[in-house]
Amino acid sequence: MILEITSKDNKIIKSVRSLSKKSNREKMGCFIVEGKRIVEEAIRDIPEKIGYVIISHSFKDKNTDTYNSLNRSGLNVYLVPDYIFDSISDTETPQGILAVSDFCDNRINKGERLLILDGISEPGNMGTIIRTAEAMGFNDIILCGNAVDIYSPKVVRSTMGSLFRLNFKTENNYDFINQLKSDGYKIYATALTSSLSLEEVEPWDKSAIVIGNEAHGVSEDILSSSDINIRIDMEGQIESLNAAVAAAITMYKFKK
Amino acid sequence: MILEITSKDNKIIKSVRSLSKKSNREKMGCFIVEGKRIVEEAIRDIPEKIGYVIISHSFKDKNTDTYNSLNRSGLNVYLVPDYIFDSISDTETPQGILAVSDFCDNRINKGERLLILDGISEPGNMGTIIRTAEAMGFNDIILCGNAVDIYSPKVVRSTMGSLFRLNFKTENNYDFINQLKSDGYKIYATALTSSLSLEEVEPWDKSAIVIGNEAHGVSEDILSSSDINIRIDMEGQIESLNAAVAAAITMYKFKK
Repeated sequence: MILEITSKDNKIIKSVRSLSKKSNREKMGCFIVEGKRIVEEAIRDIPEKIGYVIISHSFKDKNTDTYNSLNRSGLNVYLVPDYIFDSISDTETPQGILAVSDFCDNRINKGERLLILDGISEPGNMGTIIRTAEAMGFNDIILCGNAVDIYSPKVVRSTMGSLFRLNFKTENNYDFINQLKSDGYKIYATALTSSLSLEEVEPWDKSAIVIGNEAHGVSEDILSSSDINIRIDMEGQIESLNAAVAAAITMYKFKK
Repeated sequence: MILEITSKDNKIIKSVRSLSKKSNREKMGCFIVEGKRIVEEAIRDIPEKIGYVIISHSFKDKNTDTYNSLNRSGLNVYLVPDYIFDSISDTETPQGILAVSDFCDNRINKGERLLILDGISEPGNMGTIIRTAEAMGFNDIILCGNAVDIYSPKVVRSTMGSLFRLNFKTENNYDFINQLKSDGYKIYATALTSSLSLEEVEPWDKSAIVIGNEAHGVSEDILSSSDINIRIDMEGQIESLNAAVAAAITMYKFKK
């Protein structure tokens, strides 16, 4: 069923607007998914988590098929004037559709390939790494070291939907490293000065790769307790690779 | 020698401001390099190309060493009030230093590894690919298919200085592909539906890799005349990788 909202002060609209802040997202346990393609993926992949969908009048007029399928979907859908949509959109040229979804479960499955993101701070990097992780078969991601919020709008967009299909767990300290080791994982941390080149590495059955902060790299806590520290060989006068690039090359090498 | 500029209407300031437009950059054959670290790299790597450097009073006050070495450098350096610097800066929080440099020579050396960027349109991707190319030993880059301007401020910044150390050539049509083939190169184009996996590829002595546009991939003109089309195997429901990620993984595989 599709309900119309006509006031900027409607409580749904106020609630969506408040979700631009991380603290409010955490209080309410939900986040915004914006854009036609990614909302369609959310509806397909995590329908049970979607609280409601908001579309603008322009969107309705231009996307009859999507509108009709939303109407039949059983989801709560709100139709709003364009100016209200623009006021809650995070993008410069809003497509006119967003969904509010509950957070992913804070749980991983501990498969054979695990990615640990230690303090990744740039939203575009975080989103690209998550997208690449799905492509490389790394379905479990641990976030630690004050990594950027995966539910911030730019991260959500740049995951291209992978956010809905992978498992995430946030850790507030580094105790989980020892737990992973007793679960049979080898921990491979990437560092610029490691003595072992990625080319020489033989992936273990259960491998956990650690990618560090863009400026400071992997934290000492992890470097000192990891099993193997690896570097990516570089030519030229480059000091380091972009974090998403380093993550991609490393995951490609460990891909099963 | 360091000269002071006190007016926003000074012709140097007006000239720098005009360089934010691609058409003016092309008319004048020069571009802006902004930020302390990257200006230092430009001074080290391409001093002969630097027309002048502009610094703000705040920069001077906070960076005595850099100021003194600029003073001794023989470069033309202009000192301007902060509000003038802010008016010519491309960044939200200006560091207070920029240089105006001539374009790189439009010429490649035809080494054993060559990168062809066909229509890369996103500045961040372009910059990251150039940075990664240096690290992977791809020192020659051909730009074709209306790729984004490598001299736009965001590309320059995200190359982290690699722009000054690699060779670039812009091609307006695809005739160069046949020339490369007669020069002994094998052309490897990346495409989602290629029958050959990157894992099965044996790099040739002289290998040229082609990375395509973010949305449309490598153009038909190249796909039909390339020697080998390759794909990167992906898991999950990912349709494609980020262009910079695809470029990085492919160059890593071809790294000598």
